[in-house]
Amino acid sequence: MRLIAFPLVGLATLAGVVAFTAPAANQEGAPVFVTDIPAGYRDWRLISVAHEEGNFHSFSAVLGNDLAIQAYREGKVPFPDGAIIAALHYRHVPSEENNRVFGQAQSFVPGAPTNIQFMVKDTKKYAATGGWGFAHFQDGKPADAFMKPCFACHNQPEARDLVFTRYAQ
Amino acid sequence: MRLIAFPLVGLATLAGVVAFTAPAANQEGAPVFVTDIPAGYRDWRLISVAHEEGNFHSFSAVLGNDLAIQAYREGKVPFPDGAIIAALHYRHVPSEENNRVFGQAQSFVPGAPTNIQFMVKDTKKYAATGGWGFAHFQDGKPADAFMKPCFACHNQPEARDLVFTRYAQ
Repeated sequence: MRLIAFPLVGLATLAGVVAFTAPAANQEGAPVFVTDIPAGYRDWRLISVAHEEGNFHSFSAVLGNDLAIQAYREGKVPFPDGAIIAALHYRHVPSEENNRVFGQAQSFVPGAPTNIQFMVKDTKKYAATGGWGFAHFQDGKPADAFMKPCFACHNQPEARDLVFTRYAQ
Repeated sequence: MRLIAFPLVGLATLAGVVAFTAPAANQEGAPVFVTDIPAGYRDWRLISVAHEEGNFHSFSAVLGNDLAIQAYREGKVPFPDGAIIAALHYRHVPSEENNRVFGQAQSFVPGAPTNIQFMVKDTKKYAATGGWGFAHFQDGKPADAFMKPCFACHNQPEARDLVFTRYAQ
């Protein structure tokens, strides 16, 4: 599989849709994005959490379906077909209520949900993007423009099958 | 039930074990703490996430057992007996790897696990502390000193049955 190089990826942000509108592609054609929200994702088990500052001010809860959780716990890569990883994103906002209890400004909680992103492993369907289909949903609707730069960044942690998030013990 | 007042609680931090070593108690006697880690908690579903600065630099993933999740989703308080809420705490640390990809310092992930806390609902067993048993485990062992101030703070969000964490949609 020939992958398009992204020499400037180190300068990109994950929201850098202007800089990286060119998705990876190979002889098999253009990348395929995930257009349906995987059922039941809010019941999946926890992989980890994350917090992005910069332009994001974002909280993430990263969940996995059974196949993804099993692969994480066994430390197996590549992830098997059918594994799905979900990143639930929220605004990272101060908690006035908690701060009153703490007596100082120190507490941050999820604010409004911003988007939900998925990585769906299917080595055939998503062959053009490392076997992963990428998805970005806002208000329940897929946003193609936001999916295009996914692979450019996710093509980096090769040792972990293009997945950034590590399992939180 | 007569509850001891904590007029200075607004000045306390949740780690303020020096300031608040007196746990709530009533005629039934001293509070009872949770001494065993509830089985299977790492498989529970997500309630929410949190981030504490101040002296903590802490990431939380808050999980609930089936009874807790059901009560949250139905918006029912008080929580039923048997509901358990788990807070998995980690250091809040920068991700060098993610920052290289983003091209700037903006990404934080869970570092080393620090402790696991639980609230276990049992209105009889934990009558002295609002029906909740509190637990704080470090390296798998209960730490009584850290449990004593729990109720002093958790006695505040009465409208939500002494639970601070809200459900992240």
